[in-house]
Amino acid sequence: MLGDAIDFLPCESFEDVFQALASGQADASVVPIENTLHGSVHENYDHLLNFKLPIVAETRVRIVHNLIGRPEATLLKVRTAISHPVALRQCLNFFKSRKRIRAQIDYDTAGSVRRIMKENDPSVAAIASETAAAYYGAKLLKKSIEDDRHNYTRFFLLKRKAPRRAAKKGVPLKTSIVFSTPNKPGTLFRCLSAFALRDINMDKIESRPFRGRMFEYLFYLDFLGSPDEPNCRNAMSHLREMTDFMAVLGCYPQAT
Amino acid sequence: MLGDAIDFLPCESFEDVFQALASGQADASVVPIENTLHGSVHENYDHLLNFKLPIVAETRVRIVHNLIGRPEATLLKVRTAISHPVALRQCLNFFKSRKRIRAQIDYDTAGSVRRIMKENDPSVAAIASETAAAYYGAKLLKKSIEDDRHNYTRFFLLKRKAPRRAAKKGVPLKTSIVFSTPNKPGTLFRCLSAFALRDINMDKIESRPFRGRMFEYLFYLDFLGSPDEPNCRNAMSHLREMTDFMAVLGCYPQAT
Repeated sequence: MLGDAIDFLPCESFEDVFQALASGQADASVVPIENTLHGSVHENYDHLLNFKLPIVAETRVRIVHNLIGRPEATLLKVRTAISHPVALRQCLNFFKSRKRIRAQIDYDTAGSVRRIMKENDPSVAAIASETAAAYYGAKLLKKSIEDDRHNYTRFFLLKRKAPRRAAKKGVPLKTSIVFSTPNKPGTLFRCLSAFALRDINMDKIESRPFRGRMFEYLFYLDFLGSPDEPNCRNAMSHLREMTDFMAVLGCYPQAT
Repeated sequence: MLGDAIDFLPCESFEDVFQALASGQADASVVPIENTLHGSVHENYDHLLNFKLPIVAETRVRIVHNLIGRPEATLLKVRTAISHPVALRQCLNFFKSRKRIRAQIDYDTAGSVRRIMKENDPSVAAIASETAAAYYGAKLLKKSIEDDRHNYTRFFLLKRKAPRRAAKKGVPLKTSIVFSTPNKPGTLFRCLSAFALRDINMDKIESRPFRGRMFEYLFYLDFLGSPDEPNCRNAMSHLREMTDFMAVLGCYPQAT
């Protein structure tokens, strides 16, 4: 993707990513929404609700950490590996088996590649993605040094306006909604009946205390189908009867 | 708590925290399980399943970041603030309104207080908790500089053996379970019926793709009640009929 004619606009915070799209500074935004080890990024769910920018696509990316050096570097001569602390902590086995390499924290993974390329010391390597290595012209010294291969992050692509779309053959549509209910026994059960009794399959359900409101919950729910299908439309209108609040965050092709 | 006769055993990874308790090196372990901004720590749910160490208590802690300096430091003379990158990113407004202070990453929040106390430069401050400031004899330069006051982390206390317990008056017991179901329409709905039709209140529900098994989901569910109460015991045995797998992670007094 980095080879395409796309301009990137790095942002300091997730809120800035949403703001850049809302203000027209960016044409599209990409935000992480959940990770298999670290759970949902609730902050971005909050921004989805506040900014009302529709999700138009999802993707799942396996997080692979690589040891990346300067073009003249060799694995044997590396003494320091710099990266974001989360990346360093996800490569503990690598550091345990190579005592001569010291971990040192840096701001981010891709930025650590830029830094080793700027400075002139081949004994300092970075831990980052292959894409970052290719982008900065650095050398892949050791591939896939992460402890856990089941580390995936799901990202949403956001635009200012949702496209009209129909399901493509073999690629079902998925819809993300959020709703809130009072905290009473059986409330969620009744809410789910709107989908279960119409044979609509759910892909994600998660509860979260409603920020600033005691004893109320927000639910995130992804279901297979789109608001254009009559049974999904009926389920959503049934759900509205039972909830204090309901919003559609987007409808997009399910990632494979 | 730091004043009590408790020995602390800092660990490099969450897995080490579980391992220390399992091996008898520690008498109890504390692990974060979810955060209002960053979601559930799935990694620790995995460890709860693998190590089978029971949850015996829960607590919710508001994350407050403070600017902490050496005893002779003053707010006006601070030029650098060091801390864990997540803490720094949660204080963006503070840095925006004080351009003279530069953020610089460090390994962790409490560790950054230890570092400023070791080094001899009053222009370098740390961002950490009041507890860390008190522990290292450092000075609170500015309280609560975090952007978001709705930042809470829920922690579990684990022991090797679950105590026998009865609900205390006014403090209901909560039970955390995990179960898996095949991904078919209506499965979760039927599972929740075990609780809803017995008027048992749920406090958390979250789905997660089952690691290494395609098209299967793990569900985390907290309900109010204990396996000693007949209706909860019946609900759990009803749930077992409908699931591929079910485990109790612990029963503990609900945090207020």
